[in-house]
Amino acid sequence: MGEQTYRDIKIAYIGGGSRGWAWGLMGDLAREKAISGTVALYDIDFNAAKDNEIIGNRLNDQPDSIGKWTYEAFRSLPDALKGADFVIISILPGTFDEMQSDVHLPEEYGIYQTVGDTVGPGGMVRALRTIPMYVEIAEALRDHAPNAWVINYTNPMSLCTRTLYEIFPAVKAFGCCHEVFGTQQLLASMLEDMCGIEGVNRRDIEVNVLGINHFTWLDQAFYKGMDLFPIYREFTSKYAETGFIDKTQASHWMNSFFGSANRIHFDLFRRYGIMAAAGDRHLAEFMPHSWYLSSPERVEEWKIGLTPVQWRKENREKLLARSKKLVAGTEIMTPNPSGEEGVDMLLALLGSGRIITNVNIPNRGQITNLPLGAIVETNAVFGSNTVQPLLAGALPEAVNSLVIRHLYNQETTLQAALKKDKALAFRAFANDPLAAILAPARAEELFEKMLNNTKAYLPGWDL
Amino acid sequence: MGEQTYRDIKIAYIGGGSRGWAWGLMGDLAREKAISGTVALYDIDFNAAKDNEIIGNRLNDQPDSIGKWTYEAFRSLPDALKGADFVIISILPGTFDEMQSDVHLPEEYGIYQTVGDTVGPGGMVRALRTIPMYVEIAEALRDHAPNAWVINYTNPMSLCTRTLYEIFPAVKAFGCCHEVFGTQQLLASMLEDMCGIEGVNRRDIEVNVLGINHFTWLDQAFYKGMDLFPIYREFTSKYAETGFIDKTQASHWMNSFFGSANRIHFDLFRRYGIMAAAGDRHLAEFMPHSWYLSSPERVEEWKIGLTPVQWRKENREKLLARSKKLVAGTEIMTPNPSGEEGVDMLLALLGSGRIITNVNIPNRGQITNLPLGAIVETNAVFGSNTVQPLLAGALPEAVNSLVIRHLYNQETTLQAALKKDKALAFRAFANDPLAAILAPARAEELFEKMLNNTKAYLPGWDL
Amino acid sequence: MGEQTYRDIKIAYIGGGSRGWAWGLMGDLAREKAISGTVALYDIDFNAAKDNEIIGNRLNDQPDSIGKWTYEAFRSLPDALKGADFVIISILPGTFDEMQSDVHLPEEYGIYQTVGDTVGPGGMVRALRTIPMYVEIAEALRDHAPNAWVINYTNPMSLCTRTLYEIFPAVKAFGCCHEVFGTQQLLASMLEDMCGIEGVNRRDIEVNVLGINHFTWLDQAFYKGMDLFPIYREFTSKYAETGFIDKTQASHWMNSFFGSANRIHFDLFRRYGIMAAAGDRHLAEFMPHSWYLSSPERVEEWKIGLTPVQWRKENREKLLARSKKLVAGTEIMTPNPSGEEGVDMLLALLGSGRIITNVNIPNRGQITNLPLGAIVETNAVFGSNTVQPLLAGALPEAVNSLVIRHLYNQETTLQAALKKDKALAFRAFANDPLAAILAPARAEELFEKMLNNTKAYLPGWDL
Amino acid sequence: MGEQTYRDIKIAYIGGGSRGWAWGLMGDLAREKAISGTVALYDIDFNAAKDNEIIGNRLNDQPDSIGKWTYEAFRSLPDALKGADFVIISILPGTFDEMQSDVHLPEEYGIYQTVGDTVGPGGMVRALRTIPMYVEIAEALRDHAPNAWVINYTNPMSLCTRTLYEIFPAVKAFGCCHEVFGTQQLLASMLEDMCGIEGVNRRDIEVNVLGINHFTWLDQAFYKGMDLFPIYREFTSKYAETGFIDKTQASHWMNSFFGSANRIHFDLFRRYGIMAAAGDRHLAEFMPHSWYLSSPERVEEWKIGLTPVQWRKENREKLLARSKKLVAGTEIMTPNPSGEEGVDMLLALLGSGRIITNVNIPNRGQITNLPLGAIVETNAVFGSNTVQPLLAGALPEAVNSLVIRHLYNQETTLQAALKKDKALAFRAFANDPLAAILAPARAEELFEKMLNNTKAYLPGWDL
Repeated sequence: MGEQTYRDIKIAYIGGGSRGWAWGLMGDLAREKAISGTVALYDIDFNAAKDNEIIGNRLNDQPDSIGKWTYEAFRSLPDALKGADFVIISILPGTFDEMQSDVHLPEEYGIYQTVGDTVGPGGMVRALRTIPMYVEIAEALRDHAPNAWVINYTNPMSLCTRTLYEIFPAVKAFGCCHEVFGTQQLLASMLEDMCGIEGVNRRDIEVNVLGINHFTWLDQAFYKGMDLFPIYREFTSKYAETGFIDKTQASHWMNSFFGSANRIHFDLFRRYGIMAAAGDRHLAEFMPHSWYLSSPERVEEWKIGLTPVQWRKENREKLLARSKKLVAGTEIMTPNPSGEEGVDMLLALLGSGRIITNVNIPNRGQITNLPLGAIVETNAVFGSNTVQPLLAGALPEAVNSLVIRHLYNQETTLQAALKKDKALAFRAFANDPLAAILAPARAEELFEKMLNNTKAYLPGWDL
Repeated sequence: MGEQTYRDIKIAYIGGGSRGWAWGLMGDLAREKAISGTVALYDIDFNAAKDNEIIGNRLNDQPDSIGKWTYEAFRSLPDALKGADFVIISILPGTFDEMQSDVHLPEEYGIYQTVGDTVGPGGMVRALRTIPMYVEIAEALRDHAPNAWVINYTNPMSLCTRTLYEIFPAVKAFGCCHEVFGTQQLLASMLEDMCGIEGVNRRDIEVNVLGINHFTWLDQAFYKGMDLFPIYREFTSKYAETGFIDKTQASHWMNSFFGSANRIHFDLFRRYGIMAAAGDRHLAEFMPHSWYLSSPERVEEWKIGLTPVQWRKENREKLLARSKKLVAGTEIMTPNPSGEEGVDMLLALLGSGRIITNVNIPNRGQITNLPLGAIVETNAVFGSNTVQPLLAGALPEAVNSLVIRHLYNQETTLQAALKKDKALAFRAFANDPLAAILAPARAEELFEKMLNNTKAYLPGWDL
Repeated sequence: MGEQTYRDIKIAYIGGGSRGWAWGLMGDLAREKAISGTVALYDIDFNAAKDNEIIGNRLNDQPDSIGKWTYEAFRSLPDALKGADFVIISILPGTFDEMQSDVHLPEEYGIYQTVGDTVGPGGMVRALRTIPMYVEIAEALRDHAPNAWVINYTNPMSLCTRTLYEIFPAVKAFGCCHEVFGTQQLLASMLEDMCGIEGVNRRDIEVNVLGINHFTWLDQAFYKGMDLFPIYREFTSKYAETGFIDKTQASHWMNSFFGSANRIHFDLFRRYGIMAAAGDRHLAEFMPHSWYLSSPERVEEWKIGLTPVQWRKENREKLLARSKKLVAGTEIMTPNPSGEEGVDMLLALLGSGRIITNVNIPNRGQITNLPLGAIVETNAVFGSNTVQPLLAGALPEAVNSLVIRHLYNQETTLQAALKKDKALAFRAFANDPLAAILAPARAEELFEKMLNNTKAYLPGWDL
Repeated sequence: MGEQTYRDIKIAYIGGGSRGWAWGLMGDLAREKAISGTVALYDIDFNAAKDNEIIGNRLNDQPDSIGKWTYEAFRSLPDALKGADFVIISILPGTFDEMQSDVHLPEEYGIYQTVGDTVGPGGMVRALRTIPMYVEIAEALRDHAPNAWVINYTNPMSLCTRTLYEIFPAVKAFGCCHEVFGTQQLLASMLEDMCGIEGVNRRDIEVNVLGINHFTWLDQAFYKGMDLFPIYREFTSKYAETGFIDKTQASHWMNSFFGSANRIHFDLFRRYGIMAAAGDRHLAEFMPHSWYLSSPERVEEWKIGLTPVQWRKENREKLLARSKKLVAGTEIMTPNPSGEEGVDMLLALLGSGRIITNVNIPNRGQITNLPLGAIVETNAVFGSNTVQPLLAGALPEAVNSLVIRHLYNQETTLQAALKKDKALAFRAFANDPLAAILAPARAEELFEKMLNNTKAYLPGWDL
C-alpha cells in the first residue's frame, strides 16, 4: 500500500508564525514523499507568518526534501482555512508577560509551578485567556472548514480541545502531545539498564494509555510480549532516591529547565501502582501542594527544574535571530525529524494505513469512569477519515479521584470563561490542589491580581 | 387508612445496650399505637443490653405509653436476628479511647477535627476499624434475617451502609441521619426571621436532597410554593459575619460542643450557590484544610465547637449513672419524641401510607453524576416493603468535584479494609483534604501512629 | 396546610374547544376551592372555544361550584399562552376522516387495530400528522410561556411529549394518562372478589409503575402492606378463560367499544410474570400480530372491542348537540369529578402538598434499562414547582425487548417527521409488530395509501 | 520485530476431533515459523482426537511445514487444559440429529431457516443445548487454565461466549467469525466491478464494525481513503434484482447450500442505509418472517439456499473417509491457508505486533447503544496479552431496534438455560421474529416438540 500518494493537500496552520512547532512540521513534511500540497500560514503576527512562508518555500530547494510544499501567509483566518483538509493550531495565548504573571506571581503566595500552563493558578488563568481565542477559532472552523481534521498543539490542551467541541460539536478535532512518548522512551532506556536490551524503539512498546493530558497513566506496558511492570517495579525502587536520567534526554536536569530525573514518576508508581506517563514537571503540578512543589528546596530535592519565563523570553530572542538568518538565507534549515507523529497521523487519515497512537478527544466511553464529553487521553486508531479511540477501561479509584478533580475544575473554568463569570472561575481556582493551601481571602487576592495582569485578554469581563 | 394496625412485629437492635439511640427509639415506639411486638436487644456488652431490657419493659407501665413492646436481651447475634422484620444498627465502633486517638492525635500535626467520625484522618481510621464489624453484621443478616429491613445509624454512615451492600448485595438496608432536618429547621427559623412567618413545621419545607451523608446539599427548597432561595440569599448575607443561631437549638455554640452559628452554611452558599444541608461541624471536615479548620483560632472565628472526646467520656459516665437509676426504678423514663423519623419509616414500610424523607442508599441513578453503587443521600419514598429514591439529578460541577473526592476515598478505604491492605488505605488517607496538607513522610508517620492506636480492631492486618 | 389558597392562576388550554377533556376539567376546577383564576381557551375551531367560554363561565353560577374561574376564548395562540402558569394540551390531530384511514384501511391488509392512536400503522401515521403540530406548540411555549407547566393529554402521548422536549428542551411538560388508574381499580375489585375486602380506594394501592404510555407495567403492588402479586396470580388463573369484568366499568365489553374482560391482562401476566397496566385494547396493539389481533374472530375471543371510527363520528354529533344546549342554557352542566388527577397535580405544583402519581416524562434514569431521553411512564412526586420521578428500576428483559422496539420506532418516527423523510418513516412503519406481517411490497403499498389519506397534514413532504 | 519467536507455546483444542476447523488450524500453524509448541486435542469422541493427533504430527514431515508442532490427544479436559497458553473451542453441540430437528421441524409450522444455528427456533433450541456444555467448559477454564486466552468458534457464537463470561467473569475469551471478511471481500470485488481496481486485498478495506455475530453492520468503509459508501449505493442498485455473485465464492448459489447472490445485503442497504456484514443466509434469519423466509419460493426469489442437515450428514461421511486416509497416510495433507485469522491473533497476543480485526466480546461501551455485558462484534486491537475493542459508536435507531430484540432474547435464553426454566425459555422463543408469526398455542406446541427432540442434552429440566 505504500505507493499510494496524496497530492494537493491543503494544511492551514493557525499560529503559523511560530518558530518551534511550525519549523518542526516543515521538516517532517519535507521528509515524507507520499503527500504534497499547500500550507496556509495564519498568525496574528502576520510578519512572522510571512517569514515562515519564505523559510518553508526555501526548504523545497534542499536536496533532502522529498516532500514538496508551497507555503503561503494569509492575513485573514477565513482565507487561510478555506478548502483546508487539515488545520493545525499551535498558538501562544497572550505573550510571555502574561505567562510571567501566571507562573511567578503565585510564588509570592508560596505556590511554585514547574510549567504553569495546564493546571495550578497559572494554568487556570492561562485557560481563561485562551478559551475566548478558541471560541473564535471554533466559529471560524465551523464557518470555513467544517470538514477539515483539526490538530491542536496549544496548552492547556484539554481546555483548548474542549472549547472547540463546545462551540462546534461536529468538529473533527484532536489534541496531540508527546509526553507519553517520553515515558515509552524511559521504558526503552530501562530495558537497556535493567535487561541489557539495546536499541529498543519506543514505538514497539505497547502501552494502554488513560487519563487527561499531562496527567496520563499507563496500566499496561509490554515489549514483544514481555510484561514491563515487574521490571519497572525493580527499576523504580533501584533509582527511587538517585533518580534515573534517560541518556536520550538532551541535557541533565540540573542544567536544564526541562529535564528531570524521573523521581516523581518513581514516587507515583510506588504510591499508586500504575505508571504515570507525562514528564515530572507536569505531573507535580496536579498533586497536592505538600508533595513536590511546596518550596524551591523541595523542588530541587525531587530533581526537577522550575522553568522561569525569563528563560522563555531569552530563548525567544535566539529563535528570532535564527529566523532572520533563515529568511535571509544565511542559515540553511535541514529537514530533521521532530519526533512528533503529526505527519504520520495526516497520512493515516488520508488512507495510507492505520496507526495506533495516543490522542486527546472527548470521552465517548473510552475511559469508563470519567464523565462523557470530557477531553481524555487514550490510544486511538487513526485510519481513513477516522480517529477511533480504543476502549481504555477504568482508572484505579485513587488516581481517578485526582484526575476527576481536575476535570471538574476544567469544566467549571470553561463555563466561567464562556459566561465571563468571575465568581464561578474562582470556584475552580480555589479547588485547585496547589491553590487550595491558601485561606480563602488570600486565594481571592491572588486570583484578582492574576486576572488583572491578563485582563487585556478578557474582553467583556467585569473586572 | 390510619386504622390499620401491625402486631407481632419483631425489631432486632444491634448495639442494643446504647444509652442514646436505644432510649430514643423506646420513646418513639411507646408513642405509636399502630404497631407493637418485640425488640431483641443485642450488644457486645450484654449487661448493657440487659439493663435496656429492663428499662424498655418498664416503659410499658407508663400511662403515656400507647405502643406496647416486649424487650429482650440476647447473647447471640443470630438469635437476636432470627425472625426480625426490622434490624436497627447503632453501635460505637471500638471505645472512646480509640476515638480519642482518631480525633486528637492529628492535632499534633496541625489537623483539627470538629467531629472526626466521617472523613478526615479520624473518620478514615474509624472506618477501617468499623468495616470488619459490618462485614460480620452483613454476614449475619444474610444468614439469619435476609428479608428484614435494616436501618443503620452508625457513623461513618456511608461506609457502614456500603459495607452491608458489598458483603450481602440483596440486603434491604438504608442509613438514616437527621442532619437534613436541621437545615429544614434553619429554613423554618429563617421564615420567621425574614418574613415573619411563625410556626412553620420543618416537614412542610419541600427540599431536593443530594450528596453524601454529612455532606449533603439542597438545590431546591420551597414552602407552600414559595421559593426559599432568594430569601436564603438575603439571609446568608445578613448573617454572614455574625452568624445566626437557631433558637430551637438546645444551647449556644459557645456553650456547646455541638452547636454552631451556621456561618459555614452561609459561606458555602456564597461560594457555590446551593444550600449545604448538614451541620457546620460536619461540613467543615470535608473542605480544604485552609478553609475552616486550620487552627483553633480559625475554628472559633467560624463559630463552631471542636467536640473533645473527653466530653464524650464524661457524658458517658452521666448516662451510665442515669441508666442505673432507670434500671433500679428510681428514675422514670417518659416517652418523649426523639425527633428522628425511624418509627415513621417502619410504619410506611409496613404499609400504613407513603412518606417522603431523606435516606442513604446505593446510587442506582438517583444522582446522575455520582458513581453507581456509591452510598448517596437523597429523598426517597417509603412505602409498603419499598424504599424508592427520587431522581435527584446532578450536583453542580464544583460541588461534585468535592463530593467525588470523598466518595473515591471511601471506596478505596473499603477495599483497603476488606483486603487489610495498609498501602491502599494510605492512598485514601493521603488524599483526604485535611490530611493532604502533610508532606508524605509526615502523613505516613501520623497514619502509622493512628493505626497503631486502633490495632486491636484490625485483626489480620500486617502492622 | 390545607388552608393555603392560590388566586389569579392562569391556565391556557390548547384544544380548548374540546367537548370531552375540557368539560371534565371545568368540573374538576369548579370542585376545588383552593385555586381560582382564568382559563384561556385556544382552538383552531374558534367557535368551539367560544362555546366553551360560555359553558365554563355559566358553571360559576352553579351552587356546587366552589372554585371560581373566568373562561375566555382566544383567536391567537400567543395571546392565550401569555402569562400562563399552566398549559393544558388536548387536541384532535386532524379529523375523524384521517382517523378512519388510520384505523380501518389496515384492515384491508389483515391488520386489525383496537384503538389505532398509539402504535400500529394507525398510531404511526397519526404521529406523523401530529408531530408538526407539536413543533408549533413547542415553539409557541418557548416564545410565550417558557416557565409554564405543560400537561399533555393528546395521543400518541409519548411522541407528543417527546416532540415538546425535542424542540424546547427546557419545557416543563409531562403527559397524563388514566390507564394505570384502571389497573389499580381492577386490583381493588380483585380484593373484593378474592378476599372480600370492600370499598378499597384505588389510590391506596401502592404500585411501582414502569414502561411507556399505554404499555405500562407494574412490578410491585401492595395494599396496606399486603403483597397483591400472589393474589393476582390466583385471580388471573381463575378468570383466564372467562375474563373478569370490573363492575365499576360503565358497560359490558360486548356492548361497548371501550370495555374489555381483562383477558389480555391475565394472559400477559401468565407470560411475563408482571402486571400490565393499561387497558386490553391498548396492550393488544403493542404485541405480535398473531397474538390478539390477527382476525375479528380472534379479537372477539379475547373479549375486547375494536373501536370503529364511525362510532366516534356519531358520538361527536351527540356532543355537539349537547354543547348547543349547554351554550343555550337549556341544559345545565353539573361539576362532576372526572376521575383525572390533573387538578390535584396543579395544586401540588403550586405548593399545597406533595402527591405521588404516574406521569410521562423524559427518562433521566428512572427506568434503568431504557434509553435516556425517551418518554417513559413511572411514578413521580409532584411538589412545589417540581415533578420528580421515582427511580422505578429495570423492566424484565423479555418485556423490555418489546418496549424498546416501540421506543425505537417512536424515535425513528420523530426523526422522520422532523426531516419529512418518507423512507425513514417507512423503516419505523415496517418494524411495527402489527405491520411486520406484511411482505415489504405490501407494507409499502399500505403506507403510501395511508400517507396519502393524511397528506393535508404533512406540509413539505415529498409525497 | 519480525524476528521475535515464541517457543513451547501450548494450545488446547476443545473439539479437537473436528475435521473442519481443526484441520484448518493445523495448516495455518504449519505455515507460521514464529511460533511452535504443543497442541492438546480434547474431544468427547476420543478416537477422533487421536486420529487428529496422528494427522497433525504427520504434517510436520511436509516440506512446506515451517512451523513445528506436537499434537497429543487427551482423555481428560483438565489434563488438556493444564498449562495452556491458548484454548480453542470448536464443538458440535449434540449431533446432526438434534440439528435436523432444530432446522427442519419448524418447516412444518411454516418457518424456514437457512442455517438454524444462531437465532430463530433452531438457534434458540441449539443454544439451550449448548449452554450447559459451556458452563462445564467455563468451570474447567477457571479451574485449570485461568490465564489462557480462549478463542471460541462454536455457534451460537454470542451465547457461547456470553456463557463463558457469565460463569467465569475473568475469562480472557473472544469469539471469532469470518462473516465480516466475506463482506470486505464483496467490497473488494465491487471495486473491480465498478471502478476497475483489481487485486484489492480485503484486509486493506478499513471498516467500522458494529452489531452482534451474524447480524453485524458497517457504517464506514474506506479503501486507501476512498469512501466506499457512494460506490456501494450504485452497486446495490445495479444488482438489486439480479444479485451479484462474488467470483471468489467457491460455487454458484444455485449449486450450493452456502452461496448467495447478496440480494439481501443489497435490500438491507436500501432499507437502512448501512452495510450488513454477514452472509445473506445468516441475515435473513434475524429479520421478520414475512421478509425473506416466509416460503421456499420466497427463499429462492432472494437467491439464497436453505442448508439441509441431510447435506451436513453426508458431508460428514466424506470427511470421515478422508480422515481415515490421512491417518493411514494414503492421503497427504498440505498446509493450505484457511483464510481465518486465528493464528495472526495468537501471534499478536504473544507480542509480535498489533493487528486490528473484528471480534466478539462483552460490551464495555464499544457500542454505545447496546447493553453493557452483551456480547457484541466490533473491531479490536490485538496486542501483547490484550484485546482492546475500538469504540465503534452507536447503531442507527432502526437497526438497533432489530439487534436489541435478539440481544434480549439471548439474555433471556441464557437465564432460562442456567435456571432450566422452560417458561422463561418460551418467552424468548415466542419473541423471536420468525417464531412470532405463530399463534401462542402453536408456538408452544412447536417449542415442546423441539425441546423433546433435544432432551438428552437438557439434564435437570422438567420436560
